[in-house]
Amino acid sequence: MNTQAQPMATEQDMANAIRVLAMDAVEAANSGHPGAPMGMADVATVLFNRFLRVDPANPGWPDRDRFVMSAGHGSMLVYAIHHLLGFADMGADQLRAFRQLGSATPGHPEYGHTSGVETTTGPLGQGISTAVGMALAERMMNARFGDDLVDHWTWVIAGDGCLMEGISHEAIDMAGHLGLGRLIVFWDDNGITIDGSTDLSTSTDQRARFAAAGWHVQAVDGHDMAAVAAAITEARADARPSMIACRTVIGKGAPNMAGSHKVHGAPLGQDEVAATRAALGWAHPPFEVPQPVARAWKQAARRGAEAQAAWAARLGASAGRAAFEAALARPDMGALASAMAGHKARLAADRPKVATRKASEMALEVVNTTLANVVGGSADLTGSNLTRTRAQRSVSRTDYGGEYIHYGIREHGMAAAMNGIALHGGFVTYGGTFLAFADYCRPAMRLSALMGLPVTYVMTHDSIGLGEDGPTHQPVETIASLRAMPNLTVIRPADAVETAEAWEIAIASRATPTVLCLSRQNLPTLRDAAGRNRTAEGAYLLREPAGGRDVTLVATGSEVEIALAAADLLAADGIGAAVVSAPSFELFAEQPAEARAAVLGRAPRVGVEAAIRQGWDLVLRPEDGFVGMTGFGASAPAGHLYRHFGITAAGVAATARALL
Amino acid sequence: MNTQAQPMATEQDMANAIRVLAMDAVEAANSGHPGAPMGMADVATVLFNRFLRVDPANPGWPDRDRFVMSAGHGSMLVYAIHHLLGFADMGADQLRAFRQLGSATPGHPEYGHTSGVETTTGPLGQGISTAVGMALAERMMNARFGDDLVDHWTWVIAGDGCLMEGISHEAIDMAGHLGLGRLIVFWDDNGITIDGSTDLSTSTDQRARFAAAGWHVQAVDGHDMAAVAAAITEARADARPSMIACRTVIGKGAPNMAGSHKVHGAPLGQDEVAATRAALGWAHPPFEVPQPVARAWKQAARRGAEAQAAWAARLGASAGRAAFEAALARPDMGALASAMAGHKARLAADRPKVATRKASEMALEVVNTTLANVVGGSADLTGSNLTRTRAQRSVSRTDYGGEYIHYGIREHGMAAAMNGIALHGGFVTYGGTFLAFADYCRPAMRLSALMGLPVTYVMTHDSIGLGEDGPTHQPVETIASLRAMPNLTVIRPADAVETAEAWEIAIASRATPTVLCLSRQNLPTLRDAAGRNRTAEGAYLLREPAGGRDVTLVATGSEVEIALAAADLLAADGIGAAVVSAPSFELFAEQPAEARAAVLGRAPRVGVEAAIRQGWDLVLRPEDGFVGMTGFGASAPAGHLYRHFGITAAGVAATARALL
Repeated sequence: MNTQAQPMATEQDMANAIRVLAMDAVEAANSGHPGAPMGMADVATVLFNRFLRVDPANPGWPDRDRFVMSAGHGSMLVYAIHHLLGFADMGADQLRAFRQLGSATPGHPEYGHTSGVETTTGPLGQGISTAVGMALAERMMNARFGDDLVDHWTWVIAGDGCLMEGISHEAIDMAGHLGLGRLIVFWDDNGITIDGSTDLSTSTDQRARFAAAGWHVQAVDGHDMAAVAAAITEARADARPSMIACRTVIGKGAPNMAGSHKVHGAPLGQDEVAATRAALGWAHPPFEVPQPVARAWKQAARRGAEAQAAWAARLGASAGRAAFEAALARPDMGALASAMAGHKARLAADRPKVATRKASEMALEVVNTTLANVVGGSADLTGSNLTRTRAQRSVSRTDYGGEYIHYGIREHGMAAAMNGIALHGGFVTYGGTFLAFADYCRPAMRLSALMGLPVTYVMTHDSIGLGEDGPTHQPVETIASLRAMPNLTVIRPADAVETAEAWEIAIASRATPTVLCLSRQNLPTLRDAAGRNRTAEGAYLLREPAGGRDVTLVATGSEVEIALAAADLLAADGIGAAVVSAPSFELFAEQPAEARAAVLGRAPRVGVEAAIRQGWDLVLRPEDGFVGMTGFGASAPAGHLYRHFGITAAGVAATARALL
Repeated sequence: MNTQAQPMATEQDMANAIRVLAMDAVEAANSGHPGAPMGMADVATVLFNRFLRVDPANPGWPDRDRFVMSAGHGSMLVYAIHHLLGFADMGADQLRAFRQLGSATPGHPEYGHTSGVETTTGPLGQGISTAVGMALAERMMNARFGDDLVDHWTWVIAGDGCLMEGISHEAIDMAGHLGLGRLIVFWDDNGITIDGSTDLSTSTDQRARFAAAGWHVQAVDGHDMAAVAAAITEARADARPSMIACRTVIGKGAPNMAGSHKVHGAPLGQDEVAATRAALGWAHPPFEVPQPVARAWKQAARRGAEAQAAWAARLGASAGRAAFEAALARPDMGALASAMAGHKARLAADRPKVATRKASEMALEVVNTTLANVVGGSADLTGSNLTRTRAQRSVSRTDYGGEYIHYGIREHGMAAAMNGIALHGGFVTYGGTFLAFADYCRPAMRLSALMGLPVTYVMTHDSIGLGEDGPTHQPVETIASLRAMPNLTVIRPADAVETAEAWEIAIASRATPTVLCLSRQNLPTLRDAAGRNRTAEGAYLLREPAGGRDVTLVATGSEVEIALAAADLLAADGIGAAVVSAPSFELFAEQPAEARAAVLGRAPRVGVEAAIRQGWDLVLRPEDGFVGMTGFGASAPAGHLYRHFGITAAGVAATARALL
């Protein structure tokens, strides 16, 4: 084949292909956001054509560059590029099916749904913040496996919305502090938001702001491809994370609508589509890419494929290959099970009376000394969450080989960074804060659940049992709000044994995040450790009365102790009370109906949890009783609060008696 | 009385009184945070002694300065100052009862619980962000009523944690953009967080960051009282919001522990308390304030009392008095009821088929043309939330007389600012975003609920009915998560009439925030408007079958239409299906049990809501059916999604038949 004789497309042609594909797909869907893909087409073309390394034939190549479309509504930019690069799941049929059920082209990019999409974006600010985790994971993996195996970049396109969201502050502060020089953010500085000009709502000097956070900052005309390329080269040469402010015209190419907020989130309409084709000199029908342009994009893809092949050769020759592949594989659950068996046997012998946060620390000592590549952290509550084990070294800009991250007072940024670490691969990751502050993490936790990332949230101080800090710090509705979230396992262990079991469940999880709700206050060991993981059953019979059940008390976490004491009070009255420990409603719901019925029995039931009743309908019938909270807590020592709110053995026993 | 003969206390003595009271109260409670009050005692003393205007005898004086302890864990700073100024509810007995049940001195400052506490703080970043709303409300009230009646300052003490939280970015960007020059923030720059030195987690140049957001920035030694006073004077003279970085030593005064994170959140211990007394030359027993110091503080209080008296005289002489007092009073519900009656009569006649977000806009036209002092806004989704009515003018730094706030892409900051506006007084306020992004608002919404502030959250695109934007934008668990929150009224109206009723409920609310869950898609008018507000009943019988009930279909919002169609299908089979519209579970729960039983009947029930089942146990028994969602949504046109997930008339009818 004589490639010389074929006309070569210009880089501008390559960018216009993105513009037209995006415009046409939105038109076909009669829904979507043409403005951002058309505005950032030039920047993205320079990036993918000259710098970014991905291999469409190996979308999971571990050393690929990561590209995050933080302005997720501009999803057609990603889909158009994937189509042009030749990703197998992104044929023209998928572009035609943009935003249709079952297509590879949903309204916002979805991880796990479309190959090459590195993270789900759409909720603004999440992409840039998740990318910080990816870029940190890259450095942490590099510290462990060297430049031969780990040497890639994380690229982000962020819009005004991403930079206005609060989480962006947490992310850029973290990235600047950790010196993540391989993170490069393009700000689509088009001066337009949905309401109109950015002048309506913001006047922050974004460049000064990023510089204040320790970033390398540049500004370019986002339609000057040479300038964009020069800025990227300079960004790569600087040791700091880089922000390149790209002054762009939203909807660039649409002759009558470009530069207006009207092009942000609606189809251009037939007339403007035709006018855009004319203005761009684009004579081809929708979804047809002319051969020269197609060839130019395939050549860009070839660069990535060659890099992948070279990397694969290096991996094959590497002494570190086995360890590298082990880090990317499932944790060694056999080794963990053995180590945990020993730990649980010691607990059964010692029967410590410790807070479950302390029990979590004890279990983590086992986890972290058994498994390589566990990375933990806390949002500045290390000594309260007890998330740091003895051998863990702090991660810092001068030591990415550490295993513990000081996330600072940034719960939301921590959650997003954990998502990024999990998405990157190579680490099992967890992070801690107070349970009440799950609210701060929630948008990122939702993405953990939606993406199916097995990160673990260590959330301590899980009820009024935290005492004096008062209602702002006391979760009462938080557990219900987390149980409401699809694909999230919430575990509230009752003692050190259940806590160890909970950690085994969290580490074993492949596609579901886990929340551990842990007490501040000390709790006795209630379980014999022998035998199977009872926590994995979600709820199980902890005590069966000898003479048969008159009532079943179902409790979670710190209230199981109270339920047992109530059963003693009832036994003194000749009432047989079974006690069910129910550490996880989600896991219980997965049990067969007969197993659930056997645990719960037919007798009247009393639920006990120092939280609101919502969500207990899995376990309780309308006629059953509940001892818990009905409103916010108060500031006082924990014991006073339990008595004040009637969450006591006497209260539970009285509720049970009233049912009989 | 010869005051000349009495020894005068120095300002340093006044500050040391705060230090000792804070230290002793934490010691008595054996719990609390002495570090911040001791570190910021000098700054706070200069502020309260020379500048800040409050009148302990009139804590609700509308033109008082607002003081916000954003670093809420330093609550003893507030309580000590209130004690010294002579607030009636802050006797020494209350300091002794720090962090005890029922005291005026809870662990974190609680609005409505302790007089003079302007907002509940503790969750970091909330105070500074709420203060932005207060400072904006001050300017908006000033624009309406002039300098004679409205001329005060908003002062904030914020710690490193407040400035690391993402919400602080949203807040300072908003304050800078809106030119809130009467907002002055003291940053307690002590270099210490719970984990240790701030070097562990942050390296942002906070001064440069605030400057980038358009703030006036200074730095002072926070223990040099003259320098602090000079900085405040300069801050007041500058038209921009001001940040004064106060370099302090945490726990200043404690000779062996000051400057360490150990003094942040734990009692000093008896030895260090004694050493501190010695170092400060403080010979007095706990909670005893020597006369000269007490007199000096009372003199500071007198300055505020005199200002209050002068203001009261101006109010008495003011032509604007009636309007001013009306703005601070309850909205004119009679006028609103009349106007709404006309609106609802028109709806009943016209029977429009509109989205409830559109119906909300129609109702808001009535609200905003009937009531003065309603201020609305949206987090950059004005055209989607339909929150702006025709006559509303944008609020800007050059026109605080407007009624509509462009909050930008800052849901969390919006929610906190609304709290601040409500706390300030003078306005009825609402703000909009997509319901899925309630997660971004949640920590501030929790404070709306905890403080009992009647703000209204206008949350549109309330289900998979939003269609193509996909699962990131589709609430499925969000409604349940909001229903879980104490003291929050969630209303999901089914049509334009219920939407009008919902707005009447929201405006009438005095101590409970309201969330309106509104559809993107069009819905028919289902209700005759005549008669009482049925939405206020929470759930009511919309259709009763002539031949008696075989089944009851209970639905909310956009699914009521589906339930009615299902009832038609069932009627064709000779099955009598009642249809209950249930716009608000919280309001239904407040109805008498007999009324609830009458609405729900004894027949089998099917709940219908395009969301998860959690929370429906108020209405459904275990044996009842539910048609809704069990996981996240997908990207496709709304109609396709409803069919895909089986939320259809046929699906509801089939579920009903299976129960019979």
